[in-house]
Amino acid sequence: MKNNVIVIGKGPAGISCAVYLKRYGLDVIIIGRDGGALEKVATIDNYYGFYNISGKELLENGYAQAKRLGIEIKSEEVVEITKEENFSVITDQNTYEAGYVVLACGTSRNRFVMAEKFSNVSYCATCDGFFYRKKKIGLIGNSTYMAHELSVLENMCKDITVFTNGLPLDVKMNSNILVVQDKIISVLGEDRIQILKTEKQEYPIDGLFIALGQASGYTFAKHLGIETLDSKIVVDQNFQTNIKGLYACGDLIGGLLQVAKAVADGANCATSIQKHIQLNK
Amino acid sequence: MKNNVIVIGKGPAGISCAVYLKRYGLDVIIIGRDGGALEKVATIDNYYGFYNISGKELLENGYAQAKRLGIEIKSEEVVEITKEENFSVITDQNTYEAGYVVLACGTSRNRFVMAEKFSNVSYCATCDGFFYRKKKIGLIGNSTYMAHELSVLENMCKDITVFTNGLPLDVKMNSNILVVQDKIISVLGEDRIQILKTEKQEYPIDGLFIALGQASGYTFAKHLGIETLDSKIVVDQNFQTNIKGLYACGDLIGGLLQVAKAVADGANCATSIQKHIQLNK
Repeated sequence: MKNNVIVIGKGPAGISCAVYLKRYGLDVIIIGRDGGALEKVATIDNYYGFYNISGKELLENGYAQAKRLGIEIKSEEVVEITKEENFSVITDQNTYEAGYVVLACGTSRNRFVMAEKFSNVSYCATCDGFFYRKKKIGLIGNSTYMAHELSVLENMCKDITVFTNGLPLDVKMNSNILVVQDKIISVLGEDRIQILKTEKQEYPIDGLFIALGQASGYTFAKHLGIETLDSKIVVDQNFQTNIKGLYACGDLIGGLLQVAKAVADGANCATSIQKHIQLNK
Repeated sequence: MKNNVIVIGKGPAGISCAVYLKRYGLDVIIIGRDGGALEKVATIDNYYGFYNISGKELLENGYAQAKRLGIEIKSEEVVEITKEENFSVITDQNTYEAGYVVLACGTSRNRFVMAEKFSNVSYCATCDGFFYRKKKIGLIGNSTYMAHELSVLENMCKDITVFTNGLPLDVKMNSNILVVQDKIISVLGEDRIQILKTEKQEYPIDGLFIALGQASGYTFAKHLGIETLDSKIVVDQNFQTNIKGLYACGDLIGGLLQVAKAVADGANCATSIQKHIQLNK
């Protein structure tokens, strides 16, 4: 197993974690597309040491802090994580290998709750695409991450319809894929979804894949088999998930959804990884 | 029980806790003599959002942040805390009452380990002075807090010698008290201390009281009967000690001795107090 760490997420938890890892002398990079929930916060008064700072400014401080300590931040979107001996972190641009991965990419905002009670719904094309070979499937999403899931599904399924659920399509697509931009108003079926109903039409499907927004902690949990509870990732006292070498910290593990807590999570998580690497030298 | 909170300590844990309490709409004041361990830190690089800031600057930011949110900071030294229905927090200048007290006054640096194995050693004049009525006692310390302990002991004991253990005397004292400024080099006795030996002389004593430096979390623990483990204060998951209404956060409860962790402790501790007050309305 390699001894380097990839931190996914460049908000408070991710930067704090990477700063500590770097200070412990470890090889670390950060990958993250944006600053997540904090980007939209107008004013923060309750994070120690600051008064009346915007989320955006605080994030910029964090990026500068990491860079000054020599930590590289890749502003790429992670679309998939796989594990063999090491982890492969696949972004929209590259693939990176690491012995340790830290998920610090914030709360999931990409569930499609309306469909979740049905048995033929999946958050992972790689895991479940196979079960829908030659079937008629729907894929919900409008982004880079949806395009990634689509590229996986296209190898197995022939009849795919993309539903943007009212959002504009954010990526270029092959013209042979039907894209429905109407809002989905209901999901019909008993145990399995049979029909997706939009404002304008009904679409019969055999299965539904969900790839809303960016891949999130919740997405990676579904892909990797990480234990979750109420859509939060479950970690032990060392911030490790049930998958060895895969850690998580910040909002996506629950608790107080505050900068202060995310920052401390990052520091504690880094300390656990450092101890683990020391012990296994 | 009153619904107000006194936070003892104006470092990262104390300020963070008070800021959250204030934002929850609670009546809170901070009492603290100085910024503790952080005052002496030349550079901090690993607290999220800052780079190359001194401990002193970060503390100043914290004081300004609290004041701007309307939180009063009393720069007084707490010498005693007592509990009846409410808590009384006694400083070198005033007495304050509160239903809730948060200890956020950093790690204890005022133990006198050389003497601790003996049975006639005490960290609390109020608790144990009575047992040494008319006996010959030693009191170790050189500060305001020592003077407070002395004022308690003087009501009960007639023959008191103050040992500054090599430090200059920091407070004015009545001339009828013998003050020894030599360094203590050993403590002699079996189960009980019988002789305190300084560089120059031997002093026979019946009991020894310790009041080094400022009263710390460890001191208050001894005075109030707070559970400790390895000189750290033990708290439950809500940051409450074994004494109802008495909370603790930051370095004095152990864990990572870092600003990040202290700040999160403060936020979490405040949240617990707020929940407790809500539930008991």
